[in-house]
Amino acid sequence: MGDELVAFLSRHIEVSEELAATLRRSDLVRSFPRGSFLLREGEVARKAFFILRGCVRSYVLKDGDDRTVDFFIEEDAVLPLGYGTSVPSEHFLECLEDTVAVVSSPDQEERMLAEYPELKEVCLSMSEFMAARLQASLARFRTSSPQERYVDLARRRPDLLQRIPQYKIASFLGVKPESLSRIRRRLSGLS
Amino acid sequence: MGDELVAFLSRHIEVSEELAATLRRSDLVRSFPRGSFLLREGEVARKAFFILRGCVRSYVLKDGDDRTVDFFIEEDAVLPLGYGTSVPSEHFLECLEDTVAVVSSPDQEERMLAEYPELKEVCLSMSEFMAARLQASLARFRTSSPQERYVDLARRRPDLLQRIPQYKIASFLGVKPESLSRIRRRLSGLS
Repeated sequence: MGDELVAFLSRHIEVSEELAATLRRSDLVRSFPRGSFLLREGEVARKAFFILRGCVRSYVLKDGDDRTVDFFIEEDAVLPLGYGTSVPSEHFLECLEDTVAVVSSPDQEERMLAEYPELKEVCLSMSEFMAARLQASLARFRTSSPQERYVDLARRRPDLLQRIPQYKIASFLGVKPESLSRIRRRLSGLS
Repeated sequence: MGDELVAFLSRHIEVSEELAATLRRSDLVRSFPRGSFLLREGEVARKAFFILRGCVRSYVLKDGDDRTVDFFIEEDAVLPLGYGTSVPSEHFLECLEDTVAVVSSPDQEERMLAEYPELKEVCLSMSEFMAARLQASLARFRTSSPQERYVDLARRRPDLLQRIPQYKIASFLGVKPESLSRIRRRLSGLS
């Protein structure tokens, strides 16, 4: 599975034979079957993830209600709340599909970057990309209605609408499933 | 003003005399008076900012309504939506206080990192920190009521409540100013 990481990195930097061999030997890349959890409420988040393939949903249980916080797919980094601290997580990270991800801890990351400084650039551009993507998500969420969020999601990530169950999409948009059905009917009436 | 950047970096890495001199000479660090704008709706976002001192608010105008998206203070990076692209910004970035910030473009960033690779680590840990903070904000916003958001803000960032006008706080929480007053009255009745 290290191969998928080498393939990904090769799209961004020149990967030396030595680095490629190290990555292929390492246990950095792991696979998680659909339905498994990367993290559960109450656990300490010792690991961060970078998704090479698949889809992960973060959610919280609140007053018995399952509330989707975000979806992560290929080339998204998942930095759990409290990552690197000993504060127990309030979140669940659930694999909605069979998922392959780079798994790392702060120690491991430091060791790898010290040994292969060329990785810093990839990590940096990925983190900046994530930070920008998150500022965009936050902006979108703070300034739009559920219908606008749906239209926006359908435009930017049509694949997610196919890949993810409707009630999880509804909770991502911050509405009840009935409201999502109404939004869809309204929009299909328009088109 | 380069001194403030050198002081900040020295808390994270060893800053060589040469790097310190370069930073002091450079125009990377700039100051912006209270009330000035780092970016306006319709402009192309050619610059990203890292705040050394002060406070910046991002907001959009929507149907004549001023909606606060986020506040940025010391050690926050501001990566405007569309940064590095030619898409005109939908956002305003307004200095709520006299603000001192590192200002950079993708080109400048690349040049500096090539010349001073030791900066990569700082940039990386700052971007990771930002990405984690943003995932937390998004989670908080998606899963809480306005009153919970207020309590949370008061706990994490009591300084912001002092520093920022009430109606801007209200719009950040996603409520009308009257609702914020009600929330505050309700909470002071509890304490």
